[in-house]
Amino acid sequence: MKINKNYLNLEDSYLFSTISKKVHAFKENNPNSKVISLGIGDVTLPLCKSVINELHSAVEDMGKAETFKGYGPEQGYEFLRSSIKSYYESHNVKLDLNEIFISDGAKSDVGNILDIMENNNTVLIPDPVYPVYVDTNIMSGRKILYMDANKENNFLPLPDCNIKADIIYICSPNNPTGAVYNHEQLKKWVDYALNNNSIILFDSAYEAFIGDKSLPRSIFEIEGAKKCAIEFCSLSKTAGFTGTRCGYTIVPMELVFDNVKINNLWLRRQTTKFNGVSYIIQRAANAVFSKNGQQEIQESIGYYKENAKLLSATLNKLGFWFVGGTNSPYIWFKCPQNMTSWEFFDYMLNKINVVGTPGAGFGKNGEGFFRITAFGSRENILEAVKRLQTL
Amino acid sequence: MKINKNYLNLEDSYLFSTISKKVHAFKENNPNSKVISLGIGDVTLPLCKSVINELHSAVEDMGKAETFKGYGPEQGYEFLRSSIKSYYESHNVKLDLNEIFISDGAKSDVGNILDIMENNNTVLIPDPVYPVYVDTNIMSGRKILYMDANKENNFLPLPDCNIKADIIYICSPNNPTGAVYNHEQLKKWVDYALNNNSIILFDSAYEAFIGDKSLPRSIFEIEGAKKCAIEFCSLSKTAGFTGTRCGYTIVPMELVFDNVKINNLWLRRQTTKFNGVSYIIQRAANAVFSKNGQQEIQESIGYYKENAKLLSATLNKLGFWFVGGTNSPYIWFKCPQNMTSWEFFDYMLNKINVVGTPGAGFGKNGEGFFRITAFGSRENILEAVKRLQTL
Repeated sequence: MKINKNYLNLEDSYLFSTISKKVHAFKENNPNSKVISLGIGDVTLPLCKSVINELHSAVEDMGKAETFKGYGPEQGYEFLRSSIKSYYESHNVKLDLNEIFISDGAKSDVGNILDIMENNNTVLIPDPVYPVYVDTNIMSGRKILYMDANKENNFLPLPDCNIKADIIYICSPNNPTGAVYNHEQLKKWVDYALNNNSIILFDSAYEAFIGDKSLPRSIFEIEGAKKCAIEFCSLSKTAGFTGTRCGYTIVPMELVFDNVKINNLWLRRQTTKFNGVSYIIQRAANAVFSKNGQQEIQESIGYYKENAKLLSATLNKLGFWFVGGTNSPYIWFKCPQNMTSWEFFDYMLNKINVVGTPGAGFGKNGEGFFRITAFGSRENILEAVKRLQTL
Repeated sequence: MKINKNYLNLEDSYLFSTISKKVHAFKENNPNSKVISLGIGDVTLPLCKSVINELHSAVEDMGKAETFKGYGPEQGYEFLRSSIKSYYESHNVKLDLNEIFISDGAKSDVGNILDIMENNNTVLIPDPVYPVYVDTNIMSGRKILYMDANKENNFLPLPDCNIKADIIYICSPNNPTGAVYNHEQLKKWVDYALNNNSIILFDSAYEAFIGDKSLPRSIFEIEGAKKCAIEFCSLSKTAGFTGTRCGYTIVPMELVFDNVKINNLWLRRQTTKFNGVSYIIQRAANAVFSKNGQQEIQESIGYYKENAKLLSATLNKLGFWFVGGTNSPYIWFKCPQNMTSWEFFDYMLNKINVVGTPGAGFGKNGEGFFRITAFGSRENILEAVKRLQTL
């Protein structure tokens, strides 16, 4: 048996292991210091009440022969797909039930979607970036082009008509930068894709953090997007599902390449290599979209956004240049005095015992930048804010 | 964007849709008849008490900040991997914790494992077969060879040293035939794989139905297998998890191809394209391996096996040739009087209003054979037995 040698081209990422080593060493040398992490990329608030109640009820169903559920539809139960359809309608996007596929999270589908595309496609990926986009394409040996996200374009790169790409990754609100595209900017990407026969893989995992009603929460709010885009979303950050695992992928019926409906290909991929998400978890996900569920998750999102506001206000006071922080849980700022990302990391850790994520870990354009997140407790955020002001 | 054109080579399967159409038409024309299905491939008994209790407890954890779980390890929580390690020890297989990967079901991993293998490998697949093995390889354009499973070899094909294959699929107890390999036979496959630098993908999803202690429940009971095999298992049939979704994959540390540890490749695949199974579901899976859980699932398995015994005894009385039915929920028999699979299907449906699955739907060697399953209710099985005796 011959292995897939593309895997040998993957680079090991030492970003989070280096951070944890440095923090560990600092704590050993400074046992009395209280280190605060603003590097947390995971939610910290528990699941909301409506979700917990629905989980208990679904568990009860599974314990009784009359209500027990065996294999479900691979693309997800209709009750959940209907709720997602209504959710999209609330921001003026009309979907067909068959365009919605329930997944165990956006990460799985973002990786697996490449199954239905030829390896001989050119991929366009922003830099800095969520590393999964890059690694999944290295695994299949695709040619990767990078587009520069930087201070000049506010970390929102726009299409360059001289560059030809078949598969384009867009994440908005962005991970790691927190920058959000507006309608006009996304329209430019949709037009580029339609003109170049490209497909846009749109990651909207952070859409629930968008408070500004003028900003698009879905690529399908843009005219023409149904002919050129797939959207991946997740309840991970929306409803604290990082450990509960549920997401969804929208593959429009109008999406046709090589005269083949992409929806058919994805359905075939999923029915062959996937057996659907647990009934119990789909019931939990459904509760997120109930009236009470929506109110409850808004409280948690509001909590994180207030954290982001406190951090942003502090960075403003300090005169730091940054993006994100208003419609996103992430804030991405320029390190002061032209420090490199890691120099600033060490400076923060040693000077005020606050930890964040060096931007250089997300790509070459991340050098000199720094990411902090709003997922910590209010207490820690307030303490971090106090310390930041001493810088 | 260019699509993966291998998908266009997939054949649509009309097996189950044709069955349902025929049954529907029969019921319309015979509204007073009571049709019994022996074609059910899904479990029908609810989750056992220990699992239900553990599910409720895990749900409670997710509702409180102190016990809430966010992202878990992609390869699964150690508590569950430890339980699986102990389970394997109980049938004398020693595993390292890092050799165990928790999945959302064997189907996902059986499909996804091909990611780490070059497309230019030759695949050997038994006929008749679980269609997923074939379709996942067509999707990646691999060359497929078939090995004949038939009455002559009791549907347990053995290696032919004239045939060279890189990737070999073995499912024991088999789906669809219910045939089970013994140690000696599996040793022949392991020897073949070691001699030919092949990898065996061993599907043990039905291992819990093996009552005969002389039969292997894991390929790793065979000497040398850790150097040539990956094992896929699932709690779907073991503990009624078809709708709850949890399985596991064993990738031995000793497995090396092209000087690369396969375990490292699979870990990289999973950490990149998967975010782990829901904490709640992993807790449920863990309860299956508890002392009470094991007793409770044995009751359900015993129930299905008693169904299989009743059906087998009837086929014996009728003088039908068959395999399976003792260490498996499936029975695979030769249609009487040289009828084709579909002729016998129509005969059974019209004559005694009993439905099964035509063997021809699982490959060319399935022609003239028929599959029935033991997953129905006792009441229906007893009624079916009565009707079969009138044939």
